[in-house]
Amino acid sequence: MSLTDVYRYVDNNQDKLLEDLFRFLRQPSISTRNEGMDECAQLLAEEMKKLGIETKIFPTGRHPIVFGEVGPTNGDPTLLIYGHYDVQPPEPLELWDSDPFEPTIKNGRIYARGSSDNKGQLFAHVKAIEAYKTVFDKLPVKVKFIFEGEEEISSPSLEPFVAEHKDLLKSDLFVVSDSHIHESGHPLVVLGLKGMLYVEITLRGANKDLHSMRAAAVPSPVWRMIHLLASLKGEDGMVQIPGFYDNVRPLLPEEITAAEAIPFDKKELLSDLGITSLLQNRHANDYYKNMIFEPTCNISGLTAGYQEEGSKTILPCQASAKLDLRLVPDQDPDTILGLLKNHLNRNGYGDAKITVHGGFEPSRTPITHPSVQLASEAVAEVFGKEPYIYPGIGGAGPNYVFAKHLNVPCLIIPFAAADQNNHAPNESLILDGYFNGIKTSATLIHKLATTNITING
Amino acid sequence: MSLTDVYRYVDNNQDKLLEDLFRFLRQPSISTRNEGMDECAQLLAEEMKKLGIETKIFPTGRHPIVFGEVGPTNGDPTLLIYGHYDVQPPEPLELWDSDPFEPTIKNGRIYARGSSDNKGQLFAHVKAIEAYKTVFDKLPVKVKFIFEGEEEISSPSLEPFVAEHKDLLKSDLFVVSDSHIHESGHPLVVLGLKGMLYVEITLRGANKDLHSMRAAAVPSPVWRMIHLLASLKGEDGMVQIPGFYDNVRPLLPEEITAAEAIPFDKKELLSDLGITSLLQNRHANDYYKNMIFEPTCNISGLTAGYQEEGSKTILPCQASAKLDLRLVPDQDPDTILGLLKNHLNRNGYGDAKITVHGGFEPSRTPITHPSVQLASEAVAEVFGKEPYIYPGIGGAGPNYVFAKHLNVPCLIIPFAAADQNNHAPNESLILDGYFNGIKTSATLIHKLATTNITING
Repeated sequence: MSLTDVYRYVDNNQDKLLEDLFRFLRQPSISTRNEGMDECAQLLAEEMKKLGIETKIFPTGRHPIVFGEVGPTNGDPTLLIYGHYDVQPPEPLELWDSDPFEPTIKNGRIYARGSSDNKGQLFAHVKAIEAYKTVFDKLPVKVKFIFEGEEEISSPSLEPFVAEHKDLLKSDLFVVSDSHIHESGHPLVVLGLKGMLYVEITLRGANKDLHSMRAAAVPSPVWRMIHLLASLKGEDGMVQIPGFYDNVRPLLPEEITAAEAIPFDKKELLSDLGITSLLQNRHANDYYKNMIFEPTCNISGLTAGYQEEGSKTILPCQASAKLDLRLVPDQDPDTILGLLKNHLNRNGYGDAKITVHGGFEPSRTPITHPSVQLASEAVAEVFGKEPYIYPGIGGAGPNYVFAKHLNVPCLIIPFAAADQNNHAPNESLILDGYFNGIKTSATLIHKLATTNITING
Repeated sequence: MSLTDVYRYVDNNQDKLLEDLFRFLRQPSISTRNEGMDECAQLLAEEMKKLGIETKIFPTGRHPIVFGEVGPTNGDPTLLIYGHYDVQPPEPLELWDSDPFEPTIKNGRIYARGSSDNKGQLFAHVKAIEAYKTVFDKLPVKVKFIFEGEEEISSPSLEPFVAEHKDLLKSDLFVVSDSHIHESGHPLVVLGLKGMLYVEITLRGANKDLHSMRAAAVPSPVWRMIHLLASLKGEDGMVQIPGFYDNVRPLLPEEITAAEAIPFDKKELLSDLGITSLLQNRHANDYYKNMIFEPTCNISGLTAGYQEEGSKTILPCQASAKLDLRLVPDQDPDTILGLLKNHLNRNGYGDAKITVHGGFEPSRTPITHPSVQLASEAVAEVFGKEPYIYPGIGGAGPNYVFAKHLNVPCLIIPFAAADQNNHAPNESLILDGYFNGIKTSATLIHKLATTNITING
C-alpha cells in the first residue's frame, strides 16, 4: 500500500466523493440570517462520524463549532484542520446560472454557494480521511478538525473557544484550505495573513449644519478631518503615525526571495484595473512585496456634508472617516490604536471620536519552518509542480487565533481557482481542486508520519 | 406737505396697505415648479399700474421680469429698486401653523410664504410710491423697479436681461430690501455681498472598488484627495492656492471701523452653535470682520467609498469634494478657477475632474460713497436709531449684476426681522417692518431730491 493507492481511490470514486460533497452543499448554511446552520453542522458531523472521526458539536452564542479527531492516541505530530461551513447569502439570485444550493457540474467546475468558500475546500480534508483509511486502514498521525459556522460574520465565537480549549486543540501544524491558487493555475502554500485595525474617526463642529457663509468664522470639522488624515499618511505612501513601523518584523532573506519568485504581469494588472502606475510604497512599486509585507492605512469611507448631485452651500457639522489598517507581524492592533490616539492627542485632535469596528492580529509562519518544506513537497507531488510560497497575503482569516493561543505554525493550502467567484453569483470549485485537495491532505498526513523533518519544535 | 404727512398716511392706512399686500401674498409664485408665476407677475404689474407706475412685463426663458418706472423724465438722480416675487416651496406644510398662502396676523407679524422673502419687502417700496404721491402728488425723482421671478432658482435670466437693457435700467442708486435687520432689532444698511465659485473636484483610481488588501499596492484616490485638499488650505485657515488673495481689495479704515462697531455677543454665539472657539482666520477670531471681509474655501460635501454604518473593507475607486469659495471684492470667480486649476496641475493633480456648479462675482459699495450716508439718514429717521453699516455680508444675491453692468452703487436695506424663517415653515414679516419699509423708501426718495449730497458721480 502506498500513496499511489490513495490517489487511485480518489480517481476511481469521483462520483461517490462528489455525491457526498453535494449533500453538504445542498444544505443552506447562511450564518448572517441563521438559515440552516444547525442542520448543516449536524450533517457535517454525520459525514465525519461515518469515517470514524470522533465528532462533537459545541454550541456557541450563535452557530455551533464542529470538532472532530481521528488517529492514534499518541499520534505525534498532530495535524489541525480548520474550515468554515457557513456561507455568504446567495443573493442576487437572478445573476446565478443555476440554483446556488443545487450543485451543478459544468466546464469542469462545481457551481454552488460554498463550493469553494469554504465547504468544498474543507470537505476535501474530511474526504482525505476516507481515502487514507480505505487504503491504509488507519491513520499514522492524529488529525483534528475544527469547523466553525461564523466566519462570514467575523468569527465572534472562535477566539474564545480556542482560548478555552487549548488542550483539545493542541497540535503541531495548522492547515486551512481557503482563498485560491495562483491565477496561472500554479499551486500555492501561503504562510500568513495580515492583521487589521478598523476604526472610524469622527470630528464634530457646530451643533448643526450651517449656511456656508459661516465658513469665514466658524471652524469646519471637514477641514480639520482633512488635516488630521493628511497627518496620518504622507504623499510618499508612508504612514506617519509615530511608531507605526516599529514592530514590523524584519524580513528573512528567504521570504524576500520567495516574494520575488512569484510571477507577475505588471502590464496586465494595470490594464485590468484601469490604472497607469502602481503605488509607490516602501518596496517601491514591487506589487507582491507590497501586497505581502507592507502594512496599510487605507480609507474605506469618507463622509461629510452634502452627498447628492449638484451644489448645496453648507458648513457641515460633522466629518467622519473609516480607516482600515492592515497590519503585518509583529504589529498589534491594540498597540497601533494606542499610537494613533497618542498621535491625534498630540496634534490637537483630542476631541476626535474613535470607534473601533474590529481588530485582529497578523500572523506569519517563518518560511524557514520545516512544515513549509513538508507542505510544499505534498503539494508538488499532487499538483505535479512546485508551489509558489507566499510569505503572506493581504486577506483576513483566523490563523492568528491559532498561532496565538496554540503556538502552532499555520499554513494555507488553497485548492480553489482564482476565478472562484467567492461571495458572488456563480461561485464555483474546479473539480480538480476538490480531488487534488483530497489527495494533498492525504499526502500531508502520510508525510507527517514518514518524513524525517521534525515539525513540532 | 412734508415727510411727516407721508408717515401719517402710512399710519392711517395700515388696513388698506395690508389688504393690498395680502392679495399679493395669496397668489402662489413658486418658481422651481412654475406654480402661479405668470399670474403673480400680472398681479404685481396691476398693483404698480394702479399707482401710475409705467409697467411692462418682459418674458424670459422661464419666468417674467416686471419692470416699472415713475417720476419726472429728467429725474436725476434715478433710484432703481430690485426685488423678487418668486418664493420657495412652502413644504413641509404640516409644520406651518397657518396656510402659507393665506396671510395671517399674529404677534405683530404677517405669517405667509414670501412675506419677508421677498414679496413683503419689495411691496413696501411699491407702496412708498402710493404714500409719497398721495401726499406730494408727484415724485421728485425718477424711480425704476425691476422685479424678477427666478431668484430662488439662481436668477438665470437676470444678468442677460440687465446686460441687454442698460439704458432702460440706467440709474444712480440701486436698493434692494432683502435679508434681515440685526438680531437686536437695530436697522442696517448693507453695502455688499460675497461672490462665489462652486466647484466639484473628482479623482478616480482603479476602474472599480477593490478589496482593501490592494491598498498596499494600488493608488488610492481618497488619499490623493486628502493631500490635494490639504494643499488648498493650511491649518492656519489661510487658503494656499497661489494668488488667491492677490485681488482682495484693501479695506478702507472706515470699513474696519464700521465692522468693529457691530455689536456681538461672542459667548452667546458660541453657546448657540455648540462650539468652544471661533475660527482663527486672517482677522484673528473677530467674527464680523471675518464674516464681512474674509474670502472662504469651504468644503460643503466630501464623499468616498463606504457610507453606511459599520465597516466595509474597500479601496474606493473614486473620491469627490464639493468646494464653495466665497469671494470678496475684487476677486473674480473665473480668475480663481484658473488659479485653482494651475495649482492642481503644478502639484500632480492634472487628472482631477473639475465641475463648475456656479460662479458669481462679489460686490461692495465703498462705505465712503455718499449714498451710504443718505440711506443711513433715511433709515435713522424712520427707525429712530442709527443703523449699523455692514460693509458686506456672506450671503449671495444679484447685486453684482447691477454693479457690473450699470456701474451703480448698491445698497441693501432690510426691513424683516432676524427670525423671519426664510425658506422655512412659518415665514413671517414683522408688521413694523412693512410699514417702516414703506416710510424708509419714501424718505429715501425725498432725500434723493432734497439732499445736497451728489450721489451720481
